[in-house]
Amino acid sequence: MSTVFAKVGIVGKSNDTHLKPTIDALASHLLDQGVEVTAAVHTHEMIETGACLNCALKELARNSDLIIVVGGDGTILGAARVLSTLNVPLLGVNMGRLGFLADISPKVMHKAVTQILAGEFEEEHRFLLEAYVGTTPLNNKPELALNDVVIHKWNTPRVVEFEVHIDGNFVNIQHSDGLVIATPTGSTAYALSSGGPILHPALNAMVLVSICPHTLSHRPIVVSADSRVEVHVCRDKAPHVGISCDGQNDRPVAPDEYLLVKRAPNPVRLLHPKGHDHYRLLRAKLGWGGNCSAESQLAKSLHKTA
Amino acid sequence: MSTVFAKVGIVGKSNDTHLKPTIDALASHLLDQGVEVTAAVHTHEMIETGACLNCALKELARNSDLIIVVGGDGTILGAARVLSTLNVPLLGVNMGRLGFLADISPKVMHKAVTQILAGEFEEEHRFLLEAYVGTTPLNNKPELALNDVVIHKWNTPRVVEFEVHIDGNFVNIQHSDGLVIATPTGSTAYALSSGGPILHPALNAMVLVSICPHTLSHRPIVVSADSRVEVHVCRDKAPHVGISCDGQNDRPVAPDEYLLVKRAPNPVRLLHPKGHDHYRLLRAKLGWGGNCSAESQLAKSLHKTA
Amino acid sequence: MSTVFAKVGIVGKSNDTHLKPTIDALASHLLDQGVEVTAAVHTHEMIETGACLNCALKELARNSDLIIVVGGDGTILGAARVLSTLNVPLLGVNMGRLGFLADISPKVMHKAVTQILAGEFEEEHRFLLEAYVGTTPLNNKPELALNDVVIHKWNTPRVVEFEVHIDGNFVNIQHSDGLVIATPTGSTAYALSSGGPILHPALNAMVLVSICPHTLSHRPIVVSADSRVEVHVCRDKAPHVGISCDGQNDRPVAPDEYLLVKRAPNPVRLLHPKGHDHYRLLRAKLGWGGNCSAESQLAKSLHKTA
Amino acid sequence: MSTVFAKVGIVGKSNDTHLKPTIDALASHLLDQGVEVTAAVHTHEMIETGACLNCALKELARNSDLIIVVGGDGTILGAARVLSTLNVPLLGVNMGRLGFLADISPKVMHKAVTQILAGEFEEEHRFLLEAYVGTTPLNNKPELALNDVVIHKWNTPRVVEFEVHIDGNFVNIQHSDGLVIATPTGSTAYALSSGGPILHPALNAMVLVSICPHTLSHRPIVVSADSRVEVHVCRDKAPHVGISCDGQNDRPVAPDEYLLVKRAPNPVRLLHPKGHDHYRLLRAKLGWGGNCSAESQLAKSLHKTA
Repeated sequence: MSTVFAKVGIVGKSNDTHLKPTIDALASHLLDQGVEVTAAVHTHEMIETGACLNCALKELARNSDLIIVVGGDGTILGAARVLSTLNVPLLGVNMGRLGFLADISPKVMHKAVTQILAGEFEEEHRFLLEAYVGTTPLNNKPELALNDVVIHKWNTPRVVEFEVHIDGNFVNIQHSDGLVIATPTGSTAYALSSGGPILHPALNAMVLVSICPHTLSHRPIVVSADSRVEVHVCRDKAPHVGISCDGQNDRPVAPDEYLLVKRAPNPVRLLHPKGHDHYRLLRAKLGWGGNCSAESQLAKSLHKTA
Repeated sequence: MSTVFAKVGIVGKSNDTHLKPTIDALASHLLDQGVEVTAAVHTHEMIETGACLNCALKELARNSDLIIVVGGDGTILGAARVLSTLNVPLLGVNMGRLGFLADISPKVMHKAVTQILAGEFEEEHRFLLEAYVGTTPLNNKPELALNDVVIHKWNTPRVVEFEVHIDGNFVNIQHSDGLVIATPTGSTAYALSSGGPILHPALNAMVLVSICPHTLSHRPIVVSADSRVEVHVCRDKAPHVGISCDGQNDRPVAPDEYLLVKRAPNPVRLLHPKGHDHYRLLRAKLGWGGNCSAESQLAKSLHKTA
Repeated sequence: MSTVFAKVGIVGKSNDTHLKPTIDALASHLLDQGVEVTAAVHTHEMIETGACLNCALKELARNSDLIIVVGGDGTILGAARVLSTLNVPLLGVNMGRLGFLADISPKVMHKAVTQILAGEFEEEHRFLLEAYVGTTPLNNKPELALNDVVIHKWNTPRVVEFEVHIDGNFVNIQHSDGLVIATPTGSTAYALSSGGPILHPALNAMVLVSICPHTLSHRPIVVSADSRVEVHVCRDKAPHVGISCDGQNDRPVAPDEYLLVKRAPNPVRLLHPKGHDHYRLLRAKLGWGGNCSAESQLAKSLHKTA
Repeated sequence: MSTVFAKVGIVGKSNDTHLKPTIDALASHLLDQGVEVTAAVHTHEMIETGACLNCALKELARNSDLIIVVGGDGTILGAARVLSTLNVPLLGVNMGRLGFLADISPKVMHKAVTQILAGEFEEEHRFLLEAYVGTTPLNNKPELALNDVVIHKWNTPRVVEFEVHIDGNFVNIQHSDGLVIATPTGSTAYALSSGGPILHPALNAMVLVSICPHTLSHRPIVVSADSRVEVHVCRDKAPHVGISCDGQNDRPVAPDEYLLVKRAPNPVRLLHPKGHDHYRLLRAKLGWGGNCSAESQLAKSLHKTA
């Protein structure tokens, strides 16, 4: 049987032995379909079936037509940051708890994978952010973030003070616990807890959300993803500030350094089964509109007229 | 003297006699520059100087290279809804209270107008929304809104129930006081009071903000301005619902009708003096970052490095 | 058998025939316990069993040691407003959907009623608010509210303007859609949707929550329930304002009238089965802390140490 | 001249030489009134006039009838935590920036002090919180807080998980950046930035505000100040949690420890000049109701009728 993805790599959440049955079943299913299966280092040990190549994540991706990530949204975030430059599509299988990114449950995994191998899928591009830190930040190597770049207080109960500039324009001085700069993907993560809006995933925009701002009239600001955001921490506050990408890799800031955030050149390619519906995910994850039996009949009739 | 705008129309807030000195001074200044000046009906009576043509607003716009609106943001909203199809640029002079749209104060009016006539200006396009209501809404003539289309409870202390669909996808059922669908321009108006984010004016997006939603996990949603938003009011709530555009023209909804909102084809052309800075407006209007003397020095030094 | 409540009145939601089986079963169960059962007018027709006295609600209450309200929170709100002066305890049975006030489900109704008749119950006092409106408001008869008194825009898409005074002190001028003045009981109703906090039911306090305030630094204010709140609508906005109590009885405001709100002298006596837990209700109604299996074990172990 | 306060102690913000002219002037003024003046250690060096006793803060308070604190709200918070058990009244002089506690400006200082020495003042009691931490917390010495006790993430970009119990009842499990437990005094500080309501200072209540809670339906909870609040951090998160009182004295939490917060037995006695108006402070500090000329006339006429 021929598929659009002849070589599939499997990536699992590091050191999580609960994944083994799911990954085993997935590998068997892929091999049954005539697909060549490889797996990333940590994952490899879990696969007992088939001829699996043991390799590092980037190498795996270079030798794969498709990467299936088994775990949760966090696992996909990690894989996306590593793989975004390699132009290989990702498919996310969750471990039973629906994710925004890992939206395929183990129950429907076989059916979904079969469909996707047959070319029945939707492809979505999610952009990442690059976080540069330094005295001349663009000279340094950036960290990548699929959800958000966060500058926040660290090791202190007191607020931090920083200036925000967008595209070279001074925006404001903030006294707050920090600032979240989120992609549409990250708008349903920490930015949402901080009071930010939900951005549709296809929107070429990012949102800046202040964390517990001292000034009560601060509000989340949504700007083009083509913008450059700079955050300059007030000099005496620098020792009490950290920068993190997707909640990882915390990094201190020296008094003369600043943070520059812009869109990364390469987006992540996310695959979904046909009929993928982001609003259904939002309803399920955020507990919207659960028990309105009368209304769902209304909905049914409306869908015809709409 | 030759200018890029040979014929300038003046539009003032209806029936506001406080405008007279400002409009008189503006007309004199324009005539001094060799510009042909006309004025819209209500405004005309206020101008005692010069050879002014008395005409209706649309006719005025057809015979003008530039319309100067004197009043506040509300006056510009009204002019924009009428003039957006005519492709004539607007310039907003406020009456002493800074506006987001009417950002030229009477104090700097002469200088600003002179510069703009000399071609020193920035042009900004702000899109409008079209609100269609009916059983087959697109068959009807839409109302226009530069700020927002709002569907809200009317004549009742109780919540309304409605379904939201975006681009044909069911989003959720809401029990709330209503829903604001706002442009970036309107994101600093009623949508902001309702808990929405600030959208940068250049963003091709709109925001949906629920008013006092019963479901606590509802959050503002930002989607592409290319999207179509549909709002279907639950049948028994229809008599208690009204739809308004920019806080005007309230319209009831019949049980079989629904609201469809999409971007209008023609944007408004707004002129600003060179160096226009939207973030400065935000700081001034929202009371951001007032008294941080140390930080503004920081800002100065930072601008050099940025 | 002797009980602490020899005569029990049953009150059902008006004109709701779905209640019949529940009310029938409840009446039978009470009669079986040797209790004299009566029912309010609308409810009476639903009871086929027993020797029921047909009477109006207030008369029913005067002849009862306990009133059992069958319906939802709205039914109890209505009964409480009528009965608060009569000092008769209320017990709330819901129709399947958990309420904050009607917290006994039909499933456990018989067991709960048996316990309560045997004197095993907790009694809780919930205060009501009195809303006086007029040019000298205290000369007029007040409306009662167990949840909230709301002054809100009516028949208009525009904000209303009003002044708030507490205990004779000027608080602020608001431009908003209205103001909710809520009891602790009402703090989980409309006030919550408007952005207010949750007040513990035993707290002698009320909360003022502005609805979509134009000034972004307005925040809910919690004051003693012994305070007097006055709301003066700006004269030209009076025709566009309504006042409602518990979402009922909307009343216009004349230009010279103002609203005065204070605690009613008589609270409602609410009965609950022993072990009543308000926080359990909050968790269930607001969807808190659902699926944390590890943590609930933690909780178990913690309860021992706490 | 006889005054109600024969011996007055002056306390200044540590190591702030800007205070010197104000403290000098204050001391001279007090000595002119025949008052015996003492000063706390750091402050003493700044006073060049008069016979000042050099002593530690607690000793100063034991020998004073009144303590005047010169600085800002932070200086008063610090003094209040040290002095609350000593039953000596505090008066707050700010350094030019209006405070909620230090509400006397240097400009009106002499007049205000003269009035207060003459017995023309209002006394207000503000309660403090006690924060106990340990495996059996009440066995340990508590920290005091006049504003708030905060348990928050520390040294980590990730949320913390903890359980909240009030008066022995389980409230919920939270995944958040932390929890603020604030007095009415603290309700206008960090709790307000975190989304909490404003509590009137006379209210015997405290408010629990979650910081960036993961569960979107969490809301601030206001409970009696007679309640006991317990916070149990989930075991594996304990190393990443700190507890602070009024933004001071950060303290780690061991895996078996928990936090218990209750009202301190002794309140702080705060003095104000006659006519003190908390709402005026709120308007000034939060930027409420600035420029409504028409309305302030309304206000004037209303005050007569109210």
